[in-house]
Amino acid sequence: MKDYLKLSIEMHKKFNGKLEIKSKVPLENRDDLSTVYSPGVAGPCLEISKDKKNAFKLTSAKKTIGIISDGTAVLGLGNIGPDAAIPVMEGKALLFKKFAGLDAFPIVLNAKSTDEIVNAVKAIAPSFGGINLEDISAPNAFEVEDRLKKELDIPVFHDDQHGTAIVVLAGLINALKVVNKGKEAKIVVNGAGAAGIAVVKLLHKYGFKDIIVCDSKGIISNERGDLNNSKKEILSYSNKNNLSGNLLQAMKGSDIFVGVSKGDLLKKEHIKAMNKKPIVFALANPRAELAPELAQEYNIEVFATGRSDYPNQINNVLAFPGIFKGAIEAKAKNISEKMLIEAAKALSNLVKFPTASKIIPGPFESDIASIIAEAVKKAV
Amino acid sequence: MKDYLKLSIEMHKKFNGKLEIKSKVPLENRDDLSTVYSPGVAGPCLEISKDKKNAFKLTSAKKTIGIISDGTAVLGLGNIGPDAAIPVMEGKALLFKKFAGLDAFPIVLNAKSTDEIVNAVKAIAPSFGGINLEDISAPNAFEVEDRLKKELDIPVFHDDQHGTAIVVLAGLINALKVVNKGKEAKIVVNGAGAAGIAVVKLLHKYGFKDIIVCDSKGIISNERGDLNNSKKEILSYSNKNNLSGNLLQAMKGSDIFVGVSKGDLLKKEHIKAMNKKPIVFALANPRAELAPELAQEYNIEVFATGRSDYPNQINNVLAFPGIFKGAIEAKAKNISEKMLIEAAKALSNLVKFPTASKIIPGPFESDIASIIAEAVKKAV
Repeated sequence: MKDYLKLSIEMHKKFNGKLEIKSKVPLENRDDLSTVYSPGVAGPCLEISKDKKNAFKLTSAKKTIGIISDGTAVLGLGNIGPDAAIPVMEGKALLFKKFAGLDAFPIVLNAKSTDEIVNAVKAIAPSFGGINLEDISAPNAFEVEDRLKKELDIPVFHDDQHGTAIVVLAGLINALKVVNKGKEAKIVVNGAGAAGIAVVKLLHKYGFKDIIVCDSKGIISNERGDLNNSKKEILSYSNKNNLSGNLLQAMKGSDIFVGVSKGDLLKKEHIKAMNKKPIVFALANPRAELAPELAQEYNIEVFATGRSDYPNQINNVLAFPGIFKGAIEAKAKNISEKMLIEAAKALSNLVKFPTASKIIPGPFESDIASIIAEAVKKAV
Repeated sequence: MKDYLKLSIEMHKKFNGKLEIKSKVPLENRDDLSTVYSPGVAGPCLEISKDKKNAFKLTSAKKTIGIISDGTAVLGLGNIGPDAAIPVMEGKALLFKKFAGLDAFPIVLNAKSTDEIVNAVKAIAPSFGGINLEDISAPNAFEVEDRLKKELDIPVFHDDQHGTAIVVLAGLINALKVVNKGKEAKIVVNGAGAAGIAVVKLLHKYGFKDIIVCDSKGIISNERGDLNNSKKEILSYSNKNNLSGNLLQAMKGSDIFVGVSKGDLLKKEHIKAMNKKPIVFALANPRAELAPELAQEYNIEVFATGRSDYPNQINNVLAFPGIFKGAIEAKAKNISEKMLIEAAKALSNLVKFPTASKIIPGPFESDIASIIAEAVKKAV
């Protein structure tokens, strides 16, 4: 693989960052100046002060996504702080533009607590049409998202959770077609951080009945005395037989493994413990839970990773642009679970004839965001 | 005059707001995606986590200006709130781009107190290279600016105060050349809001010794029991003879009137009370303190307004782009009074041979921001 880190540093130095803010309107002379600024600009200001809804057609702000991070869980790098998180957030803004035509602006926060994050986002919310939360560590991310969803009247979406969950569900829908199984499939999700919890919630909501969740200490069960609120919450609809034990025990007789945990933790015995035609989504980054080279050797039927250099890349960029495009165009006040599920279905439908090496579209296949946006708008 | 308000509403509807956020880098295929985003973007992130200073060359953020308003003192419209303030702030962002080539992004705040404003701006500060405060009502604006200047290590500038003050000083330097007077000139400043206080401070700092300030209740003097802190503060270097009374009494024997107050309050008797060759800056908007049509009739020697349809427009756009361009390029941690004065001098020097109808350049004359930026950089 190319040394993308080095290439990326060089590219960032050459261009001095990645974003530019430009005018959509002419500004060449005094007449233009009087129209875009004083005295003319009082016109649109007064229109909005009469009725806030006019801001949607008279401003860019209300169609712009705020990409918000406190820099506590950036990529696989962990808590590197707001400054070091900027390149990721500027990159995310490019993805919004490229894949959905949406303007997005990164806001990195110097914030020490969930209160500080929530208060800052509430304060700046009138500047945006939607809020994309990014790379905020769990469990803070859950509280931040819950509170903002309640307190703001614009869409709030934590991409690490729901973006991942949508693409995982879309991939699983098609993977199950490949192996000819259905919603009765037994699923093990390994990892109960932001992404893991959201994946479990969405799979449950979609209709999967048999889900076991593991964290680094093993199966999440009623016997555990160390569970945080979000782990307790998923217990109400997972691990229905109240199994205890380690990951290997969880995987006995399972059909699907979804890893959002850490690299290289699956051994041959884990895969052997699974049912026939196992489906393995090994999504840890940069090293997957199982090296892609081993998938065939271990007789995995459908294998997916987060990596772009192997088939079946589970990539959030397949979901979030269309989700926000739909929500903004529909002037939705929030993003519901129904919208997430319809997005996943629309995404899975983009692969007409799923095969083991093609369960999900690639990010540059055409019109993905528009098609998801239409599905999302119908679900508002 | 054209109906700019109507034209502006039409233009805003046509373009759906005025700003666009674009990519500066290529993003056309998987390879680009791996460079601008995961996994490559970890490269610049790690560089910044090693040394925050690397953010200056690896991000757009640290060269982007945050334009911050709570919408409490927008144009002449007053407290119309954050949503209705957006068109002004988006316009301001265009001016930064057009006149200084700087990226700027508007943040309007849903904030009820100075604490909320200060906390929000501190939280989002890592997202920007400088903070331009805009249309925040006095006296809140003073406290917000003072606290942010102390607590942040990036330039903070309240344009309504210091932008106005710089251009007024530049205009006065040249107006005094026209009438052949100097720093001994007696100045009356009418209006003690954000702009008025800042004008008085900068004129004092520049070296004017005889300044009287009036507010809507008359001359600001030791006899007054109703003065807020900022008005008390300017008393230490204004009204040296401790005069009491109304505006007319203040203007007796004065050489210069600077109005940052409200429309149509100057009568013929006010001008007659002034010394020979009176200089009048009537800057209230949209109606000036004295209608421009009357300036000649009243024998005013040098007359300036905030209006673009008369000579000598005192326009903040002459100052703030160059101030920030200089501060950003010099990586200045703050904007000092010395930088403001050097900016005013550089601006006045752009008019080689000042006349009564040409004391200040027009905004579209070439390279103003670059020349001011050079002066500012020398003063860092």
